[in-house]
Amino acid sequence: MIVKKYVDMLGKKSAIRELFDYGAKRAQEIGRENVFDYSLGNPSVAVPRDFNETLAKLALSGDDLAVHGYSPSLGIFSVRQAIADSLRRRFSLDYEAENIFMTTGAAGALAHAIRAVAEPGSEIVTFAPYFPEYGPYVEGAGCVLRVVPAKQEDFQIDFDAFERIISQKTAAILINTPNNPSGVVYSVETLVQLANILEIKQREYGHPVFLISDEPYREIVFSNQRCPYPARFYENTITCYSFSKSLSLPGERIGYIAVNPSCQYAKLIPQMCGQISREIGHNCPPSIIQLAVAQVLDQTADLSVYEKNKNILYPALIQMGFSCVEPGGTFYMFPCVPNGKAEEFSEKAKEFDLLLVPGTTFGCPGNFRISYCIDTDKVYRSLDAFRKLANVYFP
Amino acid sequence: MIVKKYVDMLGKKSAIRELFDYGAKRAQEIGRENVFDYSLGNPSVAVPRDFNETLAKLALSGDDLAVHGYSPSLGIFSVRQAIADSLRRRFSLDYEAENIFMTTGAAGALAHAIRAVAEPGSEIVTFAPYFPEYGPYVEGAGCVLRVVPAKQEDFQIDFDAFERIISQKTAAILINTPNNPSGVVYSVETLVQLANILEIKQREYGHPVFLISDEPYREIVFSNQRCPYPARFYENTITCYSFSKSLSLPGERIGYIAVNPSCQYAKLIPQMCGQISREIGHNCPPSIIQLAVAQVLDQTADLSVYEKNKNILYPALIQMGFSCVEPGGTFYMFPCVPNGKAEEFSEKAKEFDLLLVPGTTFGCPGNFRISYCIDTDKVYRSLDAFRKLANVYFP
Repeated sequence: MIVKKYVDMLGKKSAIRELFDYGAKRAQEIGRENVFDYSLGNPSVAVPRDFNETLAKLALSGDDLAVHGYSPSLGIFSVRQAIADSLRRRFSLDYEAENIFMTTGAAGALAHAIRAVAEPGSEIVTFAPYFPEYGPYVEGAGCVLRVVPAKQEDFQIDFDAFERIISQKTAAILINTPNNPSGVVYSVETLVQLANILEIKQREYGHPVFLISDEPYREIVFSNQRCPYPARFYENTITCYSFSKSLSLPGERIGYIAVNPSCQYAKLIPQMCGQISREIGHNCPPSIIQLAVAQVLDQTADLSVYEKNKNILYPALIQMGFSCVEPGGTFYMFPCVPNGKAEEFSEKAKEFDLLLVPGTTFGCPGNFRISYCIDTDKVYRSLDAFRKLANVYFP
Repeated sequence: MIVKKYVDMLGKKSAIRELFDYGAKRAQEIGRENVFDYSLGNPSVAVPRDFNETLAKLALSGDDLAVHGYSPSLGIFSVRQAIADSLRRRFSLDYEAENIFMTTGAAGALAHAIRAVAEPGSEIVTFAPYFPEYGPYVEGAGCVLRVVPAKQEDFQIDFDAFERIISQKTAAILINTPNNPSGVVYSVETLVQLANILEIKQREYGHPVFLISDEPYREIVFSNQRCPYPARFYENTITCYSFSKSLSLPGERIGYIAVNPSCQYAKLIPQMCGQISREIGHNCPPSIIQLAVAQVLDQTADLSVYEKNKNILYPALIQMGFSCVEPGGTFYMFPCVPNGKAEEFSEKAKEFDLLLVPGTTFGCPGNFRISYCIDTDKVYRSLDAFRKLANVYFP
């Protein structure tokens, strides 16, 4: 018989996907330019020219065996080496190629990391608001996702709530900074306090508590700031990275796991990931994409549009009466829903052709997400719609 | 704690990989040209020029959102449509785009297919000799792999043995034609008899018994023959394909699942696969690889070298005294080990710098595998080494 679990998962619709589909239909009726689709986190800026040129050059190089041949299951060694070198330069941790495992984006990285360090039945703790796909990654590994409620005033960590939830059963803590959907960057103070607690808990429990750090938005930080790098604060950190946002190529599914060189089992975990790949039939990202990305490791797409959009949208919303924690990065913000009813609010917004995702999806039913990875012109044009929506709630 | 299961898997060395590593070391000592490395199934011929040119054109097209943007989790619709059209033309089954799910090669296809149709605890039946990675795919889904012993005289199916193993607990049958490692192509008679038995068993058990057909070697068939297409004989067939061998690009990890349009749940199974992807964090193959492959669906690399190599090697081995079922396709053959001791034989072969994989790896400890996807010149030059090896066993 077909497997009921996956049929049941189909029944649970994704609010983001439904909004996006609605937007596509609505665009046919009134024109795409008139739908203010803030639903999807789909990067909108051009890919660095060097990436595309490297890819083309590799394809036409004539060395098919090197370009299109099997990659070792942990990734092409020279690519892992280049990533380790880049991380070492940038974050002053002594990464080696053997600490790196190539993945299909952050999704592949997270799913592998969880399967490597969390026995079925153990718990993974994360913090609201959180990316909804953490649910399937954790459940797919046979584990339980425990969610610490949001600290609404700044979306840093509510440590009291955290200490009530972490337990002997906790295998790993899953963080996402800069955060989807809040746009908030964890401060040095947050990371220090988190590390201190985890050090204490590790000793208390007599087993490692790993920190799995989901960092696809690491390069999208505003005001010329840099995102504090979680692995610098806590040794047992497994960094999960994706080039989807920094290079603007989410469809190419390329990222990596970097295990802190001082982590327990720092070279064993990437090897274990290779075994996990065998079970799921995944076998690492395409060779040509690995080779191309290794040539542009320290580049990014021109990400400035996201900050520009934030600087238009955020003050305008505040002025209209919305309350919102100011994003420090990403292309998201996560304001409060005026009357606290996110689904109703999202429905109301549709009347003004504004597509806003209810925060329920992210574990915060009193908020809504705006994905402002869209043209700046459209952001400007959407302000009138936001104003009309605000008038409904703040008359 | 880290997950013991994957650490244990690391302890079990792959005989193929060990031989390959030995070959690389030996090449440094005596020169690559003097090592007759028949260990790996790594395609050796050039990729079709059209594929590389399409890939380069896409990369340089300037339409980054279309080329590098997110693919829907079941694959890009136009690509699925193109594959359905191609299969419909070639095999006269009414495939639609909705029957197709894009995968990272045959590995991704098999792992998804098994997870979709086999509840944990159920059994998957396959036939020796079989590809050793079937073990991890099946065990990773929480199922049990049952192996029907080989029919040594022709490597078709021993149906008596099969009927002793298939049971109420059987969720699916897993076949591979043309076969790795035997090179044998299942005959129409074999597929008809298999279908007849499965029809009877389905009725008897009161649940579907799916046929999962692993077909990466479909286009490598000798003597201008075509491989009988299993899905034409049995409705509940899920075809798992990879372009690795036909287009000679195993590192690009691209393939698909095609569910027979008359299969039960023919359009539901691809959707379920999309949900399976969520759990394992895989999210379909890269957009640009999907788009490129769709442009060359009915092309293959020049595969004639494999038949040429077979036509040199097979008669020579027979003349030396080896017994072997003649391959009908692939780039493998699977002769009998003269004294039946595969590991000892493989060790002995190394003395002549011949790298031959013991059949134990494929569930047949009395055979050895030759992967002749190497230069024809080297095949000729290896005959002397084979002759010396034969002289040890047939003095």
